[in-house]
Amino acid sequence: MSENKFKKLFLDNSARVHTHVKSGRVSVGACEVKLSPTYQEGRKVRDNGSVVIYDCAGPWADANFHFDPSKGLPQIRCDWISERGDTIESGVAAASDKHPFGGRKILKAKAGCRPTQMYYAKRGVITPEMEYVALRENIAALNCVENKMSAEAPRSSLFIEHKGEPFGARIPRNITPEFVRAEVAAGRAIIPANINHAELEPMVIGRNFLVKINTNIGNSALASSIPEEVEKMLWAVKWGSDTLMDLSTGRDISSTREWILRNCPVPVGTVPLYQALERVGGAPEELTWEIFRDVLIEQAEQGVDYFTIHAAVLRKFLPAAADRMTGIVSRGGSIMAKWMLSHGEENFLYAHWDEICDIMASYDVAFSIGDGLRPGSCADANDVPQLGELQVQGDLCRRAWAHDVQVMCEGPGHVPMQMIRHNMDCQLDWCSEAPFYTLGPVVTDIAAGYDHISSAIGAAMIAWYGTAMLCYVTPKEHLGLPNKDDVREGVVTYKLAAHAADLAKGHPAAQFRDNAMSRARFEFRWIDQFNLSLDPEKARAFRSEHSGGADAESCAHFCSMCGPKFCSMRISSQIKDTLKANPDMQKME
Amino acid sequence: MSENKFKKLFLDNSARVHTHVKSGRVSVGACEVKLSPTYQEGRKVRDNGSVVIYDCAGPWADANFHFDPSKGLPQIRCDWISERGDTIESGVAAASDKHPFGGRKILKAKAGCRPTQMYYAKRGVITPEMEYVALRENIAALNCVENKMSAEAPRSSLFIEHKGEPFGARIPRNITPEFVRAEVAAGRAIIPANINHAELEPMVIGRNFLVKINTNIGNSALASSIPEEVEKMLWAVKWGSDTLMDLSTGRDISSTREWILRNCPVPVGTVPLYQALERVGGAPEELTWEIFRDVLIEQAEQGVDYFTIHAAVLRKFLPAAADRMTGIVSRGGSIMAKWMLSHGEENFLYAHWDEICDIMASYDVAFSIGDGLRPGSCADANDVPQLGELQVQGDLCRRAWAHDVQVMCEGPGHVPMQMIRHNMDCQLDWCSEAPFYTLGPVVTDIAAGYDHISSAIGAAMIAWYGTAMLCYVTPKEHLGLPNKDDVREGVVTYKLAAHAADLAKGHPAAQFRDNAMSRARFEFRWIDQFNLSLDPEKARAFRSEHSGGADAESCAHFCSMCGPKFCSMRISSQIKDTLKANPDMQKME
Repeated sequence: MSENKFKKLFLDNSARVHTHVKSGRVSVGACEVKLSPTYQEGRKVRDNGSVVIYDCAGPWADANFHFDPSKGLPQIRCDWISERGDTIESGVAAASDKHPFGGRKILKAKAGCRPTQMYYAKRGVITPEMEYVALRENIAALNCVENKMSAEAPRSSLFIEHKGEPFGARIPRNITPEFVRAEVAAGRAIIPANINHAELEPMVIGRNFLVKINTNIGNSALASSIPEEVEKMLWAVKWGSDTLMDLSTGRDISSTREWILRNCPVPVGTVPLYQALERVGGAPEELTWEIFRDVLIEQAEQGVDYFTIHAAVLRKFLPAAADRMTGIVSRGGSIMAKWMLSHGEENFLYAHWDEICDIMASYDVAFSIGDGLRPGSCADANDVPQLGELQVQGDLCRRAWAHDVQVMCEGPGHVPMQMIRHNMDCQLDWCSEAPFYTLGPVVTDIAAGYDHISSAIGAAMIAWYGTAMLCYVTPKEHLGLPNKDDVREGVVTYKLAAHAADLAKGHPAAQFRDNAMSRARFEFRWIDQFNLSLDPEKARAFRSEHSGGADAESCAHFCSMCGPKFCSMRISSQIKDTLKANPDMQKME
Repeated sequence: MSENKFKKLFLDNSARVHTHVKSGRVSVGACEVKLSPTYQEGRKVRDNGSVVIYDCAGPWADANFHFDPSKGLPQIRCDWISERGDTIESGVAAASDKHPFGGRKILKAKAGCRPTQMYYAKRGVITPEMEYVALRENIAALNCVENKMSAEAPRSSLFIEHKGEPFGARIPRNITPEFVRAEVAAGRAIIPANINHAELEPMVIGRNFLVKINTNIGNSALASSIPEEVEKMLWAVKWGSDTLMDLSTGRDISSTREWILRNCPVPVGTVPLYQALERVGGAPEELTWEIFRDVLIEQAEQGVDYFTIHAAVLRKFLPAAADRMTGIVSRGGSIMAKWMLSHGEENFLYAHWDEICDIMASYDVAFSIGDGLRPGSCADANDVPQLGELQVQGDLCRRAWAHDVQVMCEGPGHVPMQMIRHNMDCQLDWCSEAPFYTLGPVVTDIAAGYDHISSAIGAAMIAWYGTAMLCYVTPKEHLGLPNKDDVREGVVTYKLAAHAADLAKGHPAAQFRDNAMSRARFEFRWIDQFNLSLDPEKARAFRSEHSGGADAESCAHFCSMCGPKFCSMRISSQIKDTLKANPDMQKME
């Protein structure tokens, strides 16, 4: 595996930098874009400083990294975890001919301890993980400080309200470690950070922080290999995925996951039910609690940061679910439904919830409570099975919190625009403001081949209304498995939706980058426009195509559609100059 | 130019059909998708009838058309226009070596007549054009009648209200010619249909009808030729563009437009200011009312159906516009601003508005009142210049209506999500419910290369709130000129946004197609899924890639991500069968 293949490349004038605060215990990697100065008639009239952008690529974006997946990432959290003194070594990872990571020490909670971020948050303790995410979320504030600018006020004429309080109002202009702690303690935010995933750069999921996105990867019975999945993981974090779900269902599930965890700088989630089902030859009725429990522990020991568990699919919802336009479309939901029908018993994940909570607490694995009854068509949106399950998710949230386990709730799916707000409001109410984590939703069923877009519409809206993390959807949704291009398209589309929501929520970070981009656009600073874009490489390629492969800067003073005579931005900057030169004209009636 | 190049191709089981109603004067072309029957265990259990879909491709989708652009389209409106007896021949089109359409008869209003759709609508007359669009909008109702189904109720938990009235409530379940007439008379809808564009298949733009989309094409000083533009036009209508704007600014403006008009089945709009500027060598200060007027008449005689006119950019707005983050970004707006600065006079388009209205009325050209001060960045959204211009647009609307001229208003641009609703509400109030026609809006500035998506988010939302037509944006926006692939991506993305809004508004047509799609998906009827998608060719290509090029139907009973063992839709249909076979289980507590 060659260096070029895995290195995150930056265009000119941008690079990975490390940021820290005085007396802080942590240093956070980010992407710094150095802006070009502003020129007028060949004379430099202003320096524009730089913009520091939140980055997810971890050491893969460091110029001097080893770029060798067989060596894994540095374990930056080792000391933080051991200093808490609440864990013991429970064994070492077995050697394997499918990966080179045998011999790794496995941690678990000391008897009577709960080494979770929520445990410490509730007791008033600020962990290094909380410090890390506060600094990371605060990148935009640092932008302002370093550039000696005041924070740019978001311009909002309509904030979303929840229970009478304007939504954006809760987001502080300067995010402190204490604010992070309080949000985690209240259950409004989670920091998924398994004690066995010390390679992780901590991040926070909660609606009073930047909206996050997740990428699903994973092989299937039909396609894909370990190196392909590792490459997809690196590709996803390069483009900005905040977390990663490994949904493998095919061969080599465990080894694939080991490769991913040891190389992944962002939290990794799984659906343990898939591996459990694999163990019983794919027959849902053969599943038992014991088999499932063993899978949970095995994956927790590997370092998985959050588990999707479909514990809220109850028997009483099945008749109504079977009467829907598209029945049950979640894999986890259908597996559990089939198990319940075969056994005539209640969902065993629901029945064993407290035992599951104990396992989660022992490794600080966070819950992502599955929505096994999410609608598979707009016709089924917000129906009785979906909303019934959501209420049960709320009960399970509160029970998990009693065990100091961090929780988020999964949501749909397929929801037409006019029904999205109601879904979000129900989740906030019924799940006591636990973070919501939605799959889109797509806002129409007929967009096959374009479902990344159909779902980005719903995703941007529901994130504005309060969803904390968006699970990406690729153009291949409903049609096939995504390839690398699809993963990039899906990730960038979701970064877009998340950023649009941050802007609409009045997050202090969001307007800053948009304004830097707009100034660069107005002044024809093309390199800055590329670097400030969500996908600098694509922006540059499109521009270069337009200018016939010529250097972008050489065709600087007119833009796209217009040609040199017609450029409206140039004309309006001339107007501005005229008005400046003739102050009397300002008074023009 | 070969047949294959221009013919709209259909996949298996779909074709262009012609629909008419008893005693009606008109017949409407549409796309009929014949659905496959439903099979269970190899036995046919249900016929699924067919779905008739609104189509924009005109004769280019007819199997037996001549497919030769040099012959032009049949002039289906000739008799309708001449029977009204309100027009005279004012000359014939000049011959040219750049196009074969010399000798075409040119019509204009008889002295004292106003041959506009609004004139007849106000006087209670239902024109064939109104009958045509009623039938066309009603395709979904015909679906239901022909399939002996009742209309499928839209499922809406939150309709947008305007002045206390639920928004969707105004859309009737069966759209009658009389309803169309009343909407046109009230100014809430327009049927752009120049008496010199007899090739046109009439369509309606108004928020109580299906949301429409527009495609911009046109050569520039930098690139593109006549055959390329004709091909882009046909490509745009193939993918479903409801109208087309020819924004050419380069060579051969008139001839390019002649080729387009004679071959275009949808309304064509232009910005006459561009051609006027060309006549004065590109120097805005040289523009005069007389030059502009001559261009208006020339284009009206050619058959342009609507004109963008930047008459609401007034002098008093310029100082505030110059102080913005991104100044004036509209070409038309900057040209007029420069003219006003040079002359120290009010906008001549505003000053000559009544004379312009007389010209529009003589040919039934509709206004699209330009938004020359639309925001070019989220930071400038809903600011004083933008909203000030919008109020002036409203005054101009009402003055145009006094001349029986049809009007729509153009809107932004760049608007973050939380400010979109306010923009829409102002437009409805200030412009007396004249149709709104917006360019997106993009909801963040940093999506270069992905602005079709950033703008589709804003477009879907503003169309739900009440916008009648959406101007498409391509991935090349802000970066370069779109090629054919970009046009397809832009058009399909906007069909998606428009359809999502129709669904959210509770349009009776919208849910029908989604439900047909979802049933096909649930039953693994792949061909039906392709045909019911917005882009059947892409959906089929993605599926075929997934199944290794094998025929889609051969891998029928499992879908995308899951593989044969895991398919959740299959599992849930088994559950449904189990519940049917064991009615007692329905009662499960």
